[in-house]
Amino acid sequence: MAGGTGATAGMGGSAGGMKLRHVVESQQFTLPVLMELFDRARGMEKVVARGGTLDYHNRIMASLFYQPSTRTRFSFEAAMHRLGGRVLSTDHAQAFSSAISGEQVEDSIRIIGQYADVIVIRHNDRDGARRAAEVSPVPVINAGDGNGGQHPTQALLDLYTIHRERPLGGLSVAIIGELDRGRTARSLAYLLAKFERVKIYFVAPPEMQMKPDILEYLDRHDTRYELEPELDKVIGEVDVVYQTRIRADRAADAQRMKYAINPRVLQKMKSDAIILHPLPRTVELDRTVDSDPRARYFAQAANGLYVRMALLAMVFDQ
Amino acid sequence: MAGGTGATAGMGGSAGGMKLRHVVESQQFTLPVLMELFDRARGMEKVVARGGTLDYHNRIMASLFYQPSTRTRFSFEAAMHRLGGRVLSTDHAQAFSSAISGEQVEDSIRIIGQYADVIVIRHNDRDGARRAAEVSPVPVINAGDGNGGQHPTQALLDLYTIHRERPLGGLSVAIIGELDRGRTARSLAYLLAKFERVKIYFVAPPEMQMKPDILEYLDRHDTRYELEPELDKVIGEVDVVYQTRIRADRAADAQRMKYAINPRVLQKMKSDAIILHPLPRTVELDRTVDSDPRARYFAQAANGLYVRMALLAMVFDQ
Amino acid sequence: MAGGTGATAGMGGSAGGMKLRHVVESQQFTLPVLMELFDRARGMEKVVARGGTLDYHNRIMASLFYQPSTRTRFSFEAAMHRLGGRVLSTDHAQAFSSAISGEQVEDSIRIIGQYADVIVIRHNDRDGARRAAEVSPVPVINAGDGNGGQHPTQALLDLYTIHRERPLGGLSVAIIGELDRGRTARSLAYLLAKFERVKIYFVAPPEMQMKPDILEYLDRHDTRYELEPELDKVIGEVDVVYQTRIRADRAADAQRMKYAINPRVLQKMKSDAIILHPLPRTVELDRTVDSDPRARYFAQAANGLYVRMALLAMVFDQ
Repeated sequence: MAGGTGATAGMGGSAGGMKLRHVVESQQFTLPVLMELFDRARGMEKVVARGGTLDYHNRIMASLFYQPSTRTRFSFEAAMHRLGGRVLSTDHAQAFSSAISGEQVEDSIRIIGQYADVIVIRHNDRDGARRAAEVSPVPVINAGDGNGGQHPTQALLDLYTIHRERPLGGLSVAIIGELDRGRTARSLAYLLAKFERVKIYFVAPPEMQMKPDILEYLDRHDTRYELEPELDKVIGEVDVVYQTRIRADRAADAQRMKYAINPRVLQKMKSDAIILHPLPRTVELDRTVDSDPRARYFAQAANGLYVRMALLAMVFDQ
Repeated sequence: MAGGTGATAGMGGSAGGMKLRHVVESQQFTLPVLMELFDRARGMEKVVARGGTLDYHNRIMASLFYQPSTRTRFSFEAAMHRLGGRVLSTDHAQAFSSAISGEQVEDSIRIIGQYADVIVIRHNDRDGARRAAEVSPVPVINAGDGNGGQHPTQALLDLYTIHRERPLGGLSVAIIGELDRGRTARSLAYLLAKFERVKIYFVAPPEMQMKPDILEYLDRHDTRYELEPELDKVIGEVDVVYQTRIRADRAADAQRMKYAINPRVLQKMKSDAIILHPLPRTVELDRTVDSDPRARYFAQAANGLYVRMALLAMVFDQ
Repeated sequence: MAGGTGATAGMGGSAGGMKLRHVVESQQFTLPVLMELFDRARGMEKVVARGGTLDYHNRIMASLFYQPSTRTRFSFEAAMHRLGGRVLSTDHAQAFSSAISGEQVEDSIRIIGQYADVIVIRHNDRDGARRAAEVSPVPVINAGDGNGGQHPTQALLDLYTIHRERPLGGLSVAIIGELDRGRTARSLAYLLAKFERVKIYFVAPPEMQMKPDILEYLDRHDTRYELEPELDKVIGEVDVVYQTRIRADRAADAQRMKYAINPRVLQKMKSDAIILHPLPRTVELDRTVDSDPRARYFAQAANGLYVRMALLAMVFDQ
């Protein structure tokens, strides 16, 4: 399987450890691969804590971002540096050539695959990462694709953040925000469906609710969920509050504030719940929440470093 | 003090050497810290001259530029590479996320502080670097902030360039240009006030003269200065000519040329004076000056490398 | 010669190997330098194949791109990383300073030459690289300059790709496309003229034919060529098909398609001919050609890595 280039054939088991080639979508991850990834991420925490780097100094990662995202790009690039490796980087890959505006992602990938050992791509089309994986001579990692697409490594670090604190089986999670377009929310839902007795509350205005493709996937995997327009009805029930943005152009401020986490909402939450947010934030996560002991969103950023180190190492060790 | 995050508490003495955490503004530097910095910079000259690198290979620097400045960014990044370290880099940090236009610098810093060991920031707001330092889990270095703000590392390399050639005590300096908005001029004035018997001539059209906050600071530190609209009146008196730009949108060409250094002005200067300019230049520094033995502005660029290596090393060694 | 800064004095022989300082234009390369370069490139193939890096870890390369070109920049930067070195990078060098729009390339180069050991420049003016080389304290490599200018390292990798497969003496080559403005076509023509009994067919609409300066150069070097508006007349004759773009704003689609390589044209080609293209492509190179055994354009990209590694090593070893 290590030599396969098809995105859906990106993973498989083997005697010496799980194989991982392309990372295109959350649902490709099996439970054993997730567990190996999380074990490795835990090890990476220790490497970083002692200020070390690892021995991948002959490896080159290319960051190929068709949309800028300093945070995600820096997270991957820091992960590569902490592994000891090297980085090629662009965050306006649409300017692949000054002469050609519409170059195909396939040609770019075939060329960059000659220079780098792994390509981390953020593409503006929903299937950009999959198209890249289909032709790439080296592993491709999806760093977020178009609206309504996926952001699988964000979902992996979200799940790792939960896993570090409590058992994933039997978890109760509220996923809040503009869910029809939210790629992190979509990717996380796919991953949660891997675990037993999970209950998901999708909290959103009806016109922004989670799309049927995800709900059907949950149905097929016997994962319980509810669609709920009122935050107050579920906020006291859940172990994890996963907050995301509602963009200003889709709802009036008053409606956006109905879904915000603020001191009033904090009072209704379980005392041992945790609050996640993929960041960046706008009005939906009040700054007063930062000092609440249940806030975990800056720890999420650190976990992103460990999870991406682990992912890159798994890809290199295939 | 090493654990402090407040920008104004960024420095303090200790048995084993001067501590340095954040670098936000020129006036935070005490004489002993300046002297240690310059000693270290001298050592860095030798490291670079023998083509070596130092042993900071597990350290990561993030360049977080909200305004592009290839020269300043390259100077910091070359310094980090010569120390043996690694670099994350953006020069359009305002595109921190494609989804959010107004993300707070505080959130960006809290996240990037999980990835990097030091953050070098150029922000467009005058207090951007200070706000960053207040929340950052890692040291922050100000690489220039908004109009009328500061550019402390430029001032440090300016001062080092002078220090390499003559005693700073008793120095006579002309600072020329659009001084009300000049962040390098402002930062240098703060530093010069640390030394005995310095005399500063601020040479500018009256409407662009140095602002009262700096003049009051100089008064408090018993530093002599004069406000002078005519370059010819002082050019023959000074040991150091510190030339800066007057932007085309603030004065007619004829007025800008009144403050230019050219062959006519060179003839009036002391034979052992030196000419500095933070670069880039426009009309105020004629290209014929480049071959004059008193020109030091390209040597300044090399000194920028040594001073920034020394600053980074002091920050890492705290 | 190693200390010379003049671009035209960029090369010379010596007892211990060929010296190479600046790389400004194809015609500066002598046959012995080309042969040493190709020998070294062959060695670099082996270094990369065994996943190694070389020992240039104290060297810094600056990528100074005034026009973005992710592909060319990544190729140089990957080459530097595979040599073990370090990289400073910008692909919008025109934003050298946010304050000054028209800074002279000469000042930028004098400053960056204090930070880096080699400068790779893509400038929008036809003589940008030459102007840079004239003032630079370190070697300058031209990574492509303005329309109608040159792209010498592309031509070197094109020639290396041919050299890897067949003798350069006696070669028959069709160079196709918008040749009056094509910098890769121009640079390749200069190189081909170094070899005996080469025959070049310039295939282009008459108004886009190769300019007289190149044709006169070929005449002086006794290189045979023909100007041909019909692709079909020559396609069956040549050993190498070098295809380039015709931009949409210069010709109607029907005319552009007349010069395209597609299954119909493939049938007329010699069975052992090879097809090159500097990429990116538009309509002039049909995707069905990718699977033809004569296609070499993705191998060209890999050869670009080896040739640039060899060029950088030659520059450092001077």
